[in-house]
Amino acid sequence: MTKQDYHMSPEQFREQGKKLIDWIADYYEQVENYPVLSQVSPGDIRKNLPANAPGQGESFDAMMRDVDQFILPGITHWQSPNFFAYFQSNTSGPSILGELLSAGLGVQGMLWATSPACTELESHVMDWLVDMMGLPQQFKTTNQGGGVIQDTASNALMTALLCAREMKTNFETNKLGGCPKIVAYVSSQTHSSVEKGIKIVGIGQRNLRVIDVDEHLAMIPEKMEQQIKKDLDEGYIPFFACATIGTTSSNAVDPVRAIGEICRRYDIWLHVDAAMSGSAAVCPEYRNYFDGLELAKSYAFNPHKWLFTNFDCDCFYVKDKAVLIKTLSILPEYLKNEATEKGAVIDYRDWHVQLGRRFRALKLWFVIRYYGVEGLQYHISEHIRLAQEFAGWVDQSPDFELLNQPPFNLVCFRHKSDDAFNKKLMDTLNKSGKLFLTHTVLNGQFWLRMSIGQTQTKRHHVENAWRLIQETAEMK
Amino acid sequence: MTKQDYHMSPEQFREQGKKLIDWIADYYEQVENYPVLSQVSPGDIRKNLPANAPGQGESFDAMMRDVDQFILPGITHWQSPNFFAYFQSNTSGPSILGELLSAGLGVQGMLWATSPACTELESHVMDWLVDMMGLPQQFKTTNQGGGVIQDTASNALMTALLCAREMKTNFETNKLGGCPKIVAYVSSQTHSSVEKGIKIVGIGQRNLRVIDVDEHLAMIPEKMEQQIKKDLDEGYIPFFACATIGTTSSNAVDPVRAIGEICRRYDIWLHVDAAMSGSAAVCPEYRNYFDGLELAKSYAFNPHKWLFTNFDCDCFYVKDKAVLIKTLSILPEYLKNEATEKGAVIDYRDWHVQLGRRFRALKLWFVIRYYGVEGLQYHISEHIRLAQEFAGWVDQSPDFELLNQPPFNLVCFRHKSDDAFNKKLMDTLNKSGKLFLTHTVLNGQFWLRMSIGQTQTKRHHVENAWRLIQETAEMK
Repeated sequence: MTKQDYHMSPEQFREQGKKLIDWIADYYEQVENYPVLSQVSPGDIRKNLPANAPGQGESFDAMMRDVDQFILPGITHWQSPNFFAYFQSNTSGPSILGELLSAGLGVQGMLWATSPACTELESHVMDWLVDMMGLPQQFKTTNQGGGVIQDTASNALMTALLCAREMKTNFETNKLGGCPKIVAYVSSQTHSSVEKGIKIVGIGQRNLRVIDVDEHLAMIPEKMEQQIKKDLDEGYIPFFACATIGTTSSNAVDPVRAIGEICRRYDIWLHVDAAMSGSAAVCPEYRNYFDGLELAKSYAFNPHKWLFTNFDCDCFYVKDKAVLIKTLSILPEYLKNEATEKGAVIDYRDWHVQLGRRFRALKLWFVIRYYGVEGLQYHISEHIRLAQEFAGWVDQSPDFELLNQPPFNLVCFRHKSDDAFNKKLMDTLNKSGKLFLTHTVLNGQFWLRMSIGQTQTKRHHVENAWRLIQETAEMK
Repeated sequence: MTKQDYHMSPEQFREQGKKLIDWIADYYEQVENYPVLSQVSPGDIRKNLPANAPGQGESFDAMMRDVDQFILPGITHWQSPNFFAYFQSNTSGPSILGELLSAGLGVQGMLWATSPACTELESHVMDWLVDMMGLPQQFKTTNQGGGVIQDTASNALMTALLCAREMKTNFETNKLGGCPKIVAYVSSQTHSSVEKGIKIVGIGQRNLRVIDVDEHLAMIPEKMEQQIKKDLDEGYIPFFACATIGTTSSNAVDPVRAIGEICRRYDIWLHVDAAMSGSAAVCPEYRNYFDGLELAKSYAFNPHKWLFTNFDCDCFYVKDKAVLIKTLSILPEYLKNEATEKGAVIDYRDWHVQLGRRFRALKLWFVIRYYGVEGLQYHISEHIRLAQEFAGWVDQSPDFELLNQPPFNLVCFRHKSDDAFNKKLMDTLNKSGKLFLTHTVLNGQFWLRMSIGQTQTKRHHVENAWRLIQETAEMK
């Protein structure tokens, strides 16, 4: 290895890069054999690492030996076919290679001018998705709206909150600070990122109204309208509502159209969050759950959850890009350039908090092209079919009960004993390393969550999981 | 290519992955020959892309052909040794491979439990950097403070603003919204992300005080103190100040110690932003610029700019992690777990806006180990030496003038004619494709910026650039 200038030589890069490609291919071939949930204790990883950075460079082989020996035991294998926890976060070959290409090119896409392809491919792929998924045409960049890749649904939601805040306050909060008495509406099942976002943007938790849900855990629009009227009577100003298609806890679907019509009536910004389940719209047979989406001012879903695309990749759409840009744009002198000044281009820097951005559209483009719409439809509908099959087994079991018929790929279920038993069942299963599933609390009860959507998960993994769950419950 | 289940087979992944590794190695061997600034016009990239996503999957080879034909012409080559624009954003072999490994593992590091190695390696490497760079020990995770990898300095700064806001308002803005009359202090040279951040967190642009700079473009602490006294007299509450080590426009260095002592006296949160120039601290001979850093409550610098680490990788440190966590934490039921409840671990989800996070510590660990401290020192000091050499040439030239002696690796200079001539000179140079440099406006004058720090930039590239700049100026 030549170290004369310390850089990795092109020859070294070729050699080590190819070894790493093989390492990753081997990893996917073996991942099923690792304990899904890492079995280490706090501090176990750090204690194996030297206290100080090396003064002199080390070989790449030495690093990869440490990856095998010290890092792998501390990995919870999200890409295992036996990973059923939280939400899926499925990757794929074309996506991993898209990330590699993006890292290799190493461009900054903050302005159109800083790499036109980075911006234009992103707009293009975001527009593709609108048609592929039957989303409202208003979201296309070629129309009044537009799409941008953000890092997470949390940031997308915060961006929506900001747009709504500025729209309602005539863009004066940006200037003057201190929001008037503006209030936002969510359900008890909305993702916690709304609570986090409402704190960050200076509106305050007390101005977040949490609306009741029905027996399907979906927001009750009438309750929202009652609350709006009450708020108006008390001098509050309703400005934002979030409806969810596929909540995190239970995949509940809020009635978007009914909520949207109320929002229209009271001039409230409707954001629709489909971070987990939005990928289902690639299949026409699930688009009924997205009814009313044209009433949304903004929308987000995460290909990095359930569309075989590496984290981070959240697709955020707005109905009116002028509002978004007016809310977030800042143009210091050193970023001024001809293309921007002519207004002929999109500068994505004005579409989110960050200035810098990497070329994330590549991986999404690769995934869509490699699978084709038909390949993506096949896998999404297969995951949902497997979830429904699993739900059927639970339903037929004398010992277990089902929360509800799952609309998508998440099954909430529990053993017909108490919470403590279910928690112990979950912990025992997870400690076995043979599968990993997590829980939630709904209506005061502890429910197990089985999220079926990893790239390599096949029917026999789901069958094995069900067998293991039953056996473990019997042993206790 | 087997398409029976649409996934990329392991064999395909091995084959295409290795071809892509060669593609990237070839790219770096040829990047010098491409026009640095992309020469396309708005819309040129999109018009070559099909209007709709493909129904059926395509081959990876077809995609890579399109990358060559349609994407590459739209790339501004940030990794070219002739890229002297904006700020450097240098990558390296070990970093690209670190990104690849992170994409391959595909883990979510939102909680310690969701991949202990992802959290522990990050804490460990962040602590390494404290010692490697002579940063105050208060920033170590093993002490009261701690470090976290954020995406960008913009988000780091916003996080610091939030902590400061909550500290000053007894954590009540999170609950109640609407900030009282709290005011923040920056210089006219501070990065625009403070203005963006102050709007986002609901404090408002009018509560941002812009302090004058001296002839070196550094903030004048006495002016800041005068403004603080005036604000206090008028009933405002000073809460935040940002000092910069290496401003974006000109690499000016604010007097951190003097500003810090004022902040301590008035109980103001001091954030120090060294996004661009922080890497210089790896060399002991430049640590004098960091004097007083122990007075900062938070600090950020970007290895993704000048430490051979792919974007995104911003290192954000706080003096007191409890404040940060109290400011941002939210714990929904579905994320509860034993390790978190025992308080024995760090859950980085509470250290930034986002919930999800990828395994970014890998690439930073790879870079530090591959180069060793000595290799990083060698390159940082070499970049600064080249910048000083370039500054010397400018200084000796009868036709050009220097803004000042550059402290680090950015040289601001101009032709001794008018602004229009300098702008035309810059545009002509950039349109040649032979180099790329950008401008700023300082004291009402147009200045060219020469940022020297790409991985492959050597002395002859800087020499060629200077020759080209002189020749182009003569032709006009």
